[in-house]
Amino acid sequence: MKKVKINKKILARESKIKDFRGDLKIIPLGGLGEIGKNCTVLEYEENGRRSIIILDLGLKFPEEDTPGIDYIIPNVSYLIDKKEDILGIFFAHGHYDHIGAIPYLIEKLGYPPLYAAPLTKGIIMKRQVEFKGLKELEIIEVSDGSEIMVGPFTLNFIHMNHNIPDSLAIKINIGGRDIFYSGDFKFDPNPLNDKPVDIGRLEQIGTEGIDLLMVDSTGAEEIGHSISESEIYENLDFIFKKAKGRIIAATFSSLLNRIQQIISLSEKYNRKIIIQGYSMKSNIEIARQLRYLKIDKKTIIDIKHMAEYPDNQITILATGAQGESNAALMKIASGEHKYINIKSGDTIIFSSSVIPGNERSVQIVKDEFYRRGAQVFHYKLMDIHAGGHGQQEDLEELIRLLRPRFFMPIHGYYSMLIAAADLAISLGIKKSNIIIAENGWIVHLDKDRIWREKKTVPSNYILVDGLGVGDVGEVVLRDRQLLSKDGIFVIIVVVDSATGKVKGSPDIISRGFIYLKESKEFLKEARKRTINIVEQITLANRRIDIDFIKNNLRDRIGEFLFFKTKRRPMVLPVVIRI
Amino acid sequence: MKKVKINKKILARESKIKDFRGDLKIIPLGGLGEIGKNCTVLEYEENGRRSIIILDLGLKFPEEDTPGIDYIIPNVSYLIDKKEDILGIFFAHGHYDHIGAIPYLIEKLGYPPLYAAPLTKGIIMKRQVEFKGLKELEIIEVSDGSEIMVGPFTLNFIHMNHNIPDSLAIKINIGGRDIFYSGDFKFDPNPLNDKPVDIGRLEQIGTEGIDLLMVDSTGAEEIGHSISESEIYENLDFIFKKAKGRIIAATFSSLLNRIQQIISLSEKYNRKIIIQGYSMKSNIEIARQLRYLKIDKKTIIDIKHMAEYPDNQITILATGAQGESNAALMKIASGEHKYINIKSGDTIIFSSSVIPGNERSVQIVKDEFYRRGAQVFHYKLMDIHAGGHGQQEDLEELIRLLRPRFFMPIHGYYSMLIAAADLAISLGIKKSNIIIAENGWIVHLDKDRIWREKKTVPSNYILVDGLGVGDVGEVVLRDRQLLSKDGIFVIIVVVDSATGKVKGSPDIISRGFIYLKESKEFLKEARKRTINIVEQITLANRRIDIDFIKNNLRDRIGEFLFFKTKRRPMVLPVVIRI
Repeated sequence: MKKVKINKKILARESKIKDFRGDLKIIPLGGLGEIGKNCTVLEYEENGRRSIIILDLGLKFPEEDTPGIDYIIPNVSYLIDKKEDILGIFFAHGHYDHIGAIPYLIEKLGYPPLYAAPLTKGIIMKRQVEFKGLKELEIIEVSDGSEIMVGPFTLNFIHMNHNIPDSLAIKINIGGRDIFYSGDFKFDPNPLNDKPVDIGRLEQIGTEGIDLLMVDSTGAEEIGHSISESEIYENLDFIFKKAKGRIIAATFSSLLNRIQQIISLSEKYNRKIIIQGYSMKSNIEIARQLRYLKIDKKTIIDIKHMAEYPDNQITILATGAQGESNAALMKIASGEHKYINIKSGDTIIFSSSVIPGNERSVQIVKDEFYRRGAQVFHYKLMDIHAGGHGQQEDLEELIRLLRPRFFMPIHGYYSMLIAAADLAISLGIKKSNIIIAENGWIVHLDKDRIWREKKTVPSNYILVDGLGVGDVGEVVLRDRQLLSKDGIFVIIVVVDSATGKVKGSPDIISRGFIYLKESKEFLKEARKRTINIVEQITLANRRIDIDFIKNNLRDRIGEFLFFKTKRRPMVLPVVIRI
Repeated sequence: MKKVKINKKILARESKIKDFRGDLKIIPLGGLGEIGKNCTVLEYEENGRRSIIILDLGLKFPEEDTPGIDYIIPNVSYLIDKKEDILGIFFAHGHYDHIGAIPYLIEKLGYPPLYAAPLTKGIIMKRQVEFKGLKELEIIEVSDGSEIMVGPFTLNFIHMNHNIPDSLAIKINIGGRDIFYSGDFKFDPNPLNDKPVDIGRLEQIGTEGIDLLMVDSTGAEEIGHSISESEIYENLDFIFKKAKGRIIAATFSSLLNRIQQIISLSEKYNRKIIIQGYSMKSNIEIARQLRYLKIDKKTIIDIKHMAEYPDNQITILATGAQGESNAALMKIASGEHKYINIKSGDTIIFSSSVIPGNERSVQIVKDEFYRRGAQVFHYKLMDIHAGGHGQQEDLEELIRLLRPRFFMPIHGYYSMLIAAADLAISLGIKKSNIIIAENGWIVHLDKDRIWREKKTVPSNYILVDGLGVGDVGEVVLRDRQLLSKDGIFVIIVVVDSATGKVKGSPDIISRGFIYLKESKEFLKEARKRTINIVEQITLANRRIDIDFIKNNLRDRIGEFLFFKTKRRPMVLPVVIRI
């Protein structure tokens, strides 16, 4: 068996149960049972007065069953009539799954103040510029050690390790309750260009008493401890040391810690860096301005100067590690890049995980590099990527340090939430003190129990497509899916209302069904059938019932197409009466 | 570093170089640089006489960039004018990636005789029944130890371990050359209901001399040795022993060895089996009739009798382990199954790997089971699945036993072919004696070298969609992709040819773009613009140029839609002149 059950129990902390005041509702609007669009509402009511804070406001990237969609964002309709009570939105770090929904929702939420660490703030502001017509954001800077009081809430911010600088956990005191919101975290004893988590402080917080731990569960199914970034650095160093030609390193533009490693190693081995990809350039620029990246001004060069340096003095830092078809890396791999042609001697480093669903695209890019004679390194071959999320042992460490009475796994697929809950149980937290919640639940934290209301708040997907937010619904998505399967078949018939006869030959337009130019006979028959179907109706009745004709055409031409091809294109009949 | 390099050199076998006669072309039509549609042509010419055999004729399942497609099959156009020279098609085993293209291509190939082991034959015949209008197939049975002579070819069949019974490697003697085609294989010292590979025989074959090894490289990137099926059996036994309620086991219907394990364990623990899924039923039926499955007649019961047994005497064996939305497993998970409702106490076993691209769907199914309180086991949690393909140590063992002079990796993505070649080099095979070929290459095997012609044969995808083979081309696929992104926008305008005025209001039909019922204002504007665009042209010119109007509408309405929505639906203008 691969999974090792841990049996060391933590001491149940039954002492120090504090008095809770008021009523606290914890309402996750995103991030539970899914990866991304993290968003949790804390709603507090005392003496008839309501106060709300929001933890994170992230987006989620589209899925196979949401074709053409740009992003998926949390449904905040529950908050719409409570805008005046929202005291602030607090952010754990600057990744899009935590901040990405701001431009789409901030107006709906009435522009409450935002609280973010400096780098997170920089990324939020940079993104906001891309959206026109929005008011300026009010962002209050917080950092490790900050204490913020808004209404009845007191919030403390604690530095955590993740794969972007300025990652924070948030301790929230509300109505006598102490809640620890972990954000995304891992314990890295040797982070790069960052300090480790202050274990003593977490222990102290645990001793003071945490009532509820809300913890990032994304890594809860992975055994052991997350790999330290210094180990990754050593492996990357090994590759840099051996590389005789150019190095092309691909990673996420949001993985700023990894980007720092590539930069440091390039400087160590006397390589200039060429940046490819808009988001990569933009993130490096922000982080550099805010001094979160250590980089010599002369290190980055423009691609036009590439030829002035020997191959072993060049690093290309690119986006596209997920095999995205429009990214720089794909263009380089397929030989379509304007300046960069892969040759034998080039070393390619894929330094990121592969998001489920992208495996095939990544394989295709990898294979293209192999075909052109490059040497390829990826995370399956060597530890050159570490996830940003704590694994089982990191989670255990956090639970042991904080010794929470109640436990609520957040962030991750349902199976991951379950795995986190199992870990908590194995460490002595009572099963009845654990809640595995879902988006839209209304969870109450009382002195002696954590429980949910039967009622839920809306938490269905809100889809962002182009300028539209929420105007792409199930019908549109289903149509897109149908269209992508067998295409569309449009028939246009003109009927003479005087005679009931079809005028001329019906027009047929089809896309994504069969290649019409090679199907002349077939089209001829479809036209003939169309005329027959229409005239059967129009010649027998004096009144021309357009809907009746359309329905007949849809069904019977649909059947004919299926019989001939075993495909079911969407049939759209147009009947024009003149 | 995860990868361990092996340095034990095999003895280079430079002695015993035989005299080669004639000219041999090895033409892979599928399986190289991809997973699936395995097909290799051997074409031999001596004294002006051509003889051809084909090794496997498989299909490949569709990919994200081939929406709506059923299957992808090899392009056999190279063979069309050489039909009379095809002496036979030889099959390694009964999986669809080896046999699946037969019904689509056998007529084009002129119905050559097929050579297959009994179970492979059974599966081929059963499938053929689903295709009407085809001639009866001529299938000659072969098995471990068979020797077949067709024209100048002598073929010997050797039992290998895979995850379906009757898996064969094929040794081909042609014009003095000895070629070993491994088929899919692994070395399993303790296979279930099967015998291990006869190592002595392989060694003997190696001693007699193999000139070229064509080897399945699918597992070449995986370190170590493939897991034995008996180890899988033990882990499954552990789950069966502990299970207190029903067991629902999901796997591929083609994984007959795994299915045998589930059956044996169910019988051991006194459980009746309910089969869910057409292909599962059909494969079990064939294998049972041919005595390749050991199963008591009374073990399988109809689902209607499920209630007559206590939960701990029921196993449900189902397809859908890849999260396919129409499979039994998905229906069970989502609570839509007519008879089976998941309850706490049920145990779910996912006993198959996850095909790249399906991870998210599988996660969704798993989560549904968790939500309903079932216990879920999958291959990441426990070794309850082993792949059918030999890993690095299996490949090394085969190379050591056969000691081939030349080496050609087949079956697998390009990176896998490279990994297999690297293994061969590490075992002492000369780099110049290795060819990493691609589909469509013409490879020659001469006495002293293996080389390729500059020319290639067509090997592009042939897409099967419904009844059509090859009639869905790039244009149709691109249209489907476009349609799935932003949908379609059809505008129908009727123009009075006498006055040039638009008659009535233009019709607009749109699907997959925006929800029209909620966009009345927007539609009104689109109609107004349409009339303006058309009349600007028609009122200025005496002759009504329909194509000119259409192009104008397409461009300018397209722009308008993009400006308003930042989406680019396909715009289809229809102009009717009356």
